Amino acid sequence: MLQIEKGIDKIVKTIRVLILDQPGYLGRVATAVGNAGGNITDTHLVSYGFEYNTRDLTVFLDDEAHLQTVLAEIGTVEGVIISEIIDPVLELHRGGKIRVKSRFPVDSLATIRKLYTPGVAKVCKLIEQKPELRYLYTSIGNTVAIVTNGTAILGLGDIGPVAGMPVMEGKAVLFDALVGINGVPILIDSKDTEEIIRTVKAIAPTFGAIKLEDIAAPECFEIERRLDAELDIPVMHDDQHGTATVALAALLNATKYVGKPFRNDCVGMVGLGAAGMGISKLLIAYGVGRMVGNDINPQEMEIFAKAGGVPLSLDEVMQAADIVICATGQADLLKPAMIRKGQIILALSNPRPEISPEDARGAGAAFAADGRSVNNALAFPGIFRGALAARAHRICNRMKIAAARAIAAFAVTGELVPSILNLDVHQAVAAAVERAAFEAGVARPRAEDVPEG
Amino acid sequence: MLQIEKGIDKIVKTIRVLILDQPGYLGRVATAVGNAGGNITDTHLVSYGFEYNTRDLTVFLDDEAHLQTVLAEIGTVEGVIISEIIDPVLELHRGGKIRVKSRFPVDSLATIRKLYTPGVAKVCKLIEQKPELRYLYTSIGNTVAIVTNGTAILGLGDIGPVAGMPVMEGKAVLFDALVGINGVPILIDSKDTEEIIRTVKAIAPTFGAIKLEDIAAPECFEIERRLDAELDIPVMHDDQHGTATVALAALLNATKYVGKPFRNDCVGMVGLGAAGMGISKLLIAYGVGRMVGNDINPQEMEIFAKAGGVPLSLDEVMQAADIVICATGQADLLKPAMIRKGQIILALSNPRPEISPEDARGAGAAFAADGRSVNNALAFPGIFRGALAARAHRICNRMKIAAARAIAAFAVTGELVPSILNLDVHQAVAAAVERAAFEAGVARPRAEDVPEG
Repeated sequence: MLQIEKGIDKIVKTIRVLILDQPGYLGRVATAVGNAGGNITDTHLVSYGFEYNTRDLTVFLDDEAHLQTVLAEIGTVEGVIISEIIDPVLELHRGGKIRVKSRFPVDSLATIRKLYTPGVAKVCKLIEQKPELRYLYTSIGNTVAIVTNGTAILGLGDIGPVAGMPVMEGKAVLFDALVGINGVPILIDSKDTEEIIRTVKAIAPTFGAIKLEDIAAPECFEIERRLDAELDIPVMHDDQHGTATVALAALLNATKYVGKPFRNDCVGMVGLGAAGMGISKLLIAYGVGRMVGNDINPQEMEIFAKAGGVPLSLDEVMQAADIVICATGQADLLKPAMIRKGQIILALSNPRPEISPEDARGAGAAFAADGRSVNNALAFPGIFRGALAARAHRICNRMKIAAARAIAAFAVTGELVPSILNLDVHQAVAAAVERAAFEAGVARPRAEDVPEG
Repeated sequence: MLQIEKGIDKIVKTIRVLILDQPGYLGRVATAVGNAGGNITDTHLVSYGFEYNTRDLTVFLDDEAHLQTVLAEIGTVEGVIISEIIDPVLELHRGGKIRVKSRFPVDSLATIRKLYTPGVAKVCKLIEQKPELRYLYTSIGNTVAIVTNGTAILGLGDIGPVAGMPVMEGKAVLFDALVGINGVPILIDSKDTEEIIRTVKAIAPTFGAIKLEDIAAPECFEIERRLDAELDIPVMHDDQHGTATVALAALLNATKYVGKPFRNDCVGMVGLGAAGMGISKLLIAYGVGRMVGNDINPQEMEIFAKAGGVPLSLDEVMQAADIVICATGQADLLKPAMIRKGQIILALSNPRPEISPEDARGAGAAFAADGRSVNNALAFPGIFRGALAARAHRICNRMKIAAARAIAAFAVTGELVPSILNLDVHQAVAAAVERAAFEAGVARPRAEDVPEG
């Protein structure tokens, strides 16, 4: 949930401009955009003209009014003509972001007779006789359902499952691009915990694992707990555990930066929604000295206590904790006066943290960071890849901790966690998770190769 | 169901041979295979050697014993060495037959910020405000669930949903290859009609249409009827209506061949399972003079009567009908003595028909054909493509009849129906079905383009 709130009010536009074909003009345009507070991520040369060249500038902006300010500033640059404003987000989404594709061309009747009748009957019969062969001869073992009921989509809240589809497709795109998993969005039209559990169980044979996504707390806790207990394949609520894994990785690096291990520390969790609860549960499993926490919702405080945490007031948390992690969604919740000297502060809410790293350091924090880089897409692809490779029954804490360590190890100086575009990270996470699954005894022995016939 | 029973006991093998690099040797090997009754579909040159060339022969065979016969026959050809027996069906299925892919490369943070947070939030909000935009900005409108509970997989019967997965993936491959639809297999672990209906309804927002597949009769009738009534997207049980559409196309061509329209004829349906019932319902909708039928199961006879058919004994059907269509799965059910002079006989069961075309013609039939070419993959891709293009609420008889006419029109002299590899057929079916949806009033008007912002 955390990473998704980042920059939620920001918009992105592609500004197509004709720029005089003379040295320095691109720089002038870029300077104008920067002067107006626009953030250019990419510029592309579209075409050469006799006098003017056409370029696309992709710019992140606060809102539509900000776009107008940027356009006005570009308008002051001599030799530059604004030709078109393109919305690259809508362009990218047109027709949807994913496709289900055949893995081979269908170009002859011989191929059809293999993939379909009569050839396919033999494969069906083999799987009927030996169900483990589904891992070998179907896509099941490489396919993860991305399940939502749309009650907690991004920071947008309960917008319904259909409006949540672009996020689910986005996760499927990341699954494909980062680790080659088939992500299949499943939108469930229900807010009833039992109905959701029943539906997921009914369609579970289709998948190698289940990723729960953007389901509101506290229902998400019971849905995950029950599915984890009642299904024989991995079930993980990403907003809890993906986020928790990356937060643990961030904490490992933050404390390394400070130069002390944190096993015996008191950790305070401020905000006990899906993310805060996931982080708390993982840190308790990791073995921190004491886990204290606060939320304005008393129901969440109860759930936190049942999970082994100590519910306290916000002031008490700030007093007790050596390390404070915030996931409240509330900007500027922490005042400098509340920070204790030497504390580690991870204020993860996006787009605006509970306290800025500068303010926290100014108030005496030994280390402070916000949540911009804490993206759960660092964790979920490798975790599922590793769990599927191990044909795991479930995803246990040992696997998440192994993932967090692998992620932390890839951060270079100046990074809290590595970039999600570093594919080596995802491979390393997958390998660590697969090994942890075997060590924890939740892996499934591989089916022997198919007998002849 | 019909087409799937075709050649169910057949196997396919790739025989890799070293053949002396001299003219005529490939012909000798092919002759040997043919002499032993093997059916070569493809030969591929694998590599040139100094003395011998390596070739793969893909051969359809009756069974393992037949393979041994063929190998023995090849063994008698001088200058030929058998090097390997490969199972191309298992090779093709290894790792599954489908993949969920991103539609674009994920190669920069700018792309991630568009496909995911922060950019994606805007798309979610647009869809929340105007749900029709899901057709524009998600894959929903191009995605069909391929739903089975595994109770009637091919001719194999109730082998369970997981063992049915290779067939569902096969349908998804055909969807992609023939009309570019995303086919998503959904395996439901239940034999309870209400549970299946509830599950499909719960996940229906994910899809533009629902294709029910290989669900046993009579449960399939109620499941389809209820989902069709209760969902606002097309629901079609392929074993009924895909088969019925192709059978109608075949009948249009058969009667054209005989030179008379059949609207006023009495049609007899022998076998009232999913296929027979689907054919009967479509022919009644088409407006045949009288629809009579027979099944050994009295429950199916009742359902047939409710659908407007006249249940009779098998002998009565053969006496009354001008046109007899068989879909019983029982080879040699019809004896030559039962055929009336001038009858049209379509004996569709595979791999062996209820009566061979030769025997039927010999007994006086004006036209006779078996079901080898009656493959419902001729119908379902274009039907769903057209229904999705029209954003149809449902698939009505008018759409199926339009599809049947389009299919029939593509058959050339000597064909009952065209080849499924002719992509023009599927485009023509889609166009005809889309138009019929608008004419029948089941199409949805297109959402206007998205407003700026």
